[in-house]
Amino acid sequence: MRTLTRAERAQLAMVLEVSAYPKPGNVDRCHDYPNTRLEHFLASSILARPALEAAERGEGGVGTLIHRAVECTSGYSGGNTHFGAFILLIPLVMGDSIDGASKVIATTTVDDAVEFYHAFGKTEVRVIEKHELDVHDPDSIAALRSRGMNLYDVLLYSAPRDMVAREWINGFQMTRRGADLLHAAGCGRDAIVEAFLGLLALEPDTFIFKKHGPDTAWRTMEKAREVREGLRDLQAFDQECIDKGINPGSIADIIIASLYIALGEGWQWDC
Amino acid sequence: MRTLTRAERAQLAMVLEVSAYPKPGNVDRCHDYPNTRLEHFLASSILARPALEAAERGEGGVGTLIHRAVECTSGYSGGNTHFGAFILLIPLVMGDSIDGASKVIATTTVDDAVEFYHAFGKTEVRVIEKHELDVHDPDSIAALRSRGMNLYDVLLYSAPRDMVAREWINGFQMTRRGADLLHAAGCGRDAIVEAFLGLLALEPDTFIFKKHGPDTAWRTMEKAREVREGLRDLQAFDQECIDKGINPGSIADIIIASLYIALGEGWQWDC
Repeated sequence: MRTLTRAERAQLAMVLEVSAYPKPGNVDRCHDYPNTRLEHFLASSILARPALEAAERGEGGVGTLIHRAVECTSGYSGGNTHFGAFILLIPLVMGDSIDGASKVIATTTVDDAVEFYHAFGKTEVRVIEKHELDVHDPDSIAALRSRGMNLYDVLLYSAPRDMVAREWINGFQMTRRGADLLHAAGCGRDAIVEAFLGLLALEPDTFIFKKHGPDTAWRTMEKAREVREGLRDLQAFDQECIDKGINPGSIADIIIASLYIALGEGWQWDC
Repeated sequence: MRTLTRAERAQLAMVLEVSAYPKPGNVDRCHDYPNTRLEHFLASSILARPALEAAERGEGGVGTLIHRAVECTSGYSGGNTHFGAFILLIPLVMGDSIDGASKVIATTTVDDAVEFYHAFGKTEVRVIEKHELDVHDPDSIAALRSRGMNLYDVLLYSAPRDMVAREWINGFQMTRRGADLLHAAGCGRDAIVEAFLGLLALEPDTFIFKKHGPDTAWRTMEKAREVREGLRDLQAFDQECIDKGINPGSIADIIIASLYIALGEGWQWDC
């Protein structure tokens, strides 16, 4: 098989993640939410390509490229599908690997932060509260500039409440863990479910935290552990999450990054 | 929403087709075959991009580009996923529309035919019988050259037994019909199922014909008509086809081309 470009690897990671099932609570092959459906994720995976290719060629800063990915994939009703994934994939594609991405992250600028805010403002991503750097407040851009905050600083600011932002700060620890889980689980789509459950059992999903509060986030993590220990049925857990609208969206973002890394390390999606 | 490139439109058509359900007998969101699964079709949709982009830029002849699409998407175990679709999409992307594709088809060369044979030899496409232009017989290439057969001639030769080849000969009649069915059915994925059923009810699928014989092909067409008339349950028909391995693969190829055309005419996948 020909060697995939990094952009193709990222796209493949996106379609593999969304089609794997059952992934408790998330859109997958067998489940939609009323306003966010499988085809929104598939279309987003196709349409993100120009931004991913520009990232591979190193054309533009990381903030501009995240902004471009959001622009490439907006314009239909599915809302934010891959915003969190782009926050991870863009530096990973720019830098090829986690080490390379860490170098990209170490050199972000205030302009990257401003571009990121523009991108963020175009999504419908859930924020925990109106805070002083609200992306919908034009004064926030001025505040970023006056404080000299680069994109790393912005994500450092978000990291306590957002596990995707935390990946930027801690050197992609959960991304790495997810890739290791994929390798350990063997090839194919069942391994994706296993890695997903593994990350869900590791830390409370911050998307659930923002949407449903800490108790639900912790309880969901505990239930994922029970599934892994054979004490709880996976299908029933999935259905319960779907029924309650408990969707671990941040873990899904991170698993996409894990798939990107694992595919680059020879993990086989096809078996 | 930004205007899609033709290559993106073709890729979107591929992922929308395979994820629509229930499509009687075919791989869809809810059904796999043991050796050909949803993710094979999704990966093929991602990986075909370089060939589709080259077609959009007019780089290379139609035979070379079909060959390139097969090469881009081979190397995993799913076998032939989109070969028939590429036979239609490559000239459509080259020419933009059915009119443009017809001009491409009118100027094919013997070299196009030779490239097509090389591509065909790399797939596992079912052929009805060993005939004098067997793609696995090296003498066939010499025969093409000595007879001066271009790719149009080759597909004319196949047209009586292959409805995808027939599209080249008759000016994409079923492709056009499928696009009209999509427009008539309204937006979104249910329209894809309706258009698929509409084509299945129109003519016997030649892939089924080759695999199971004429009786099964005609009976499947009649059953599709009964579903459309409300006399037969769609889900039960789907399950019956799946159980018997009756998969209308040629209609699926044509629906992809119909989606490409309809998307270019403003048909909305998202509603």
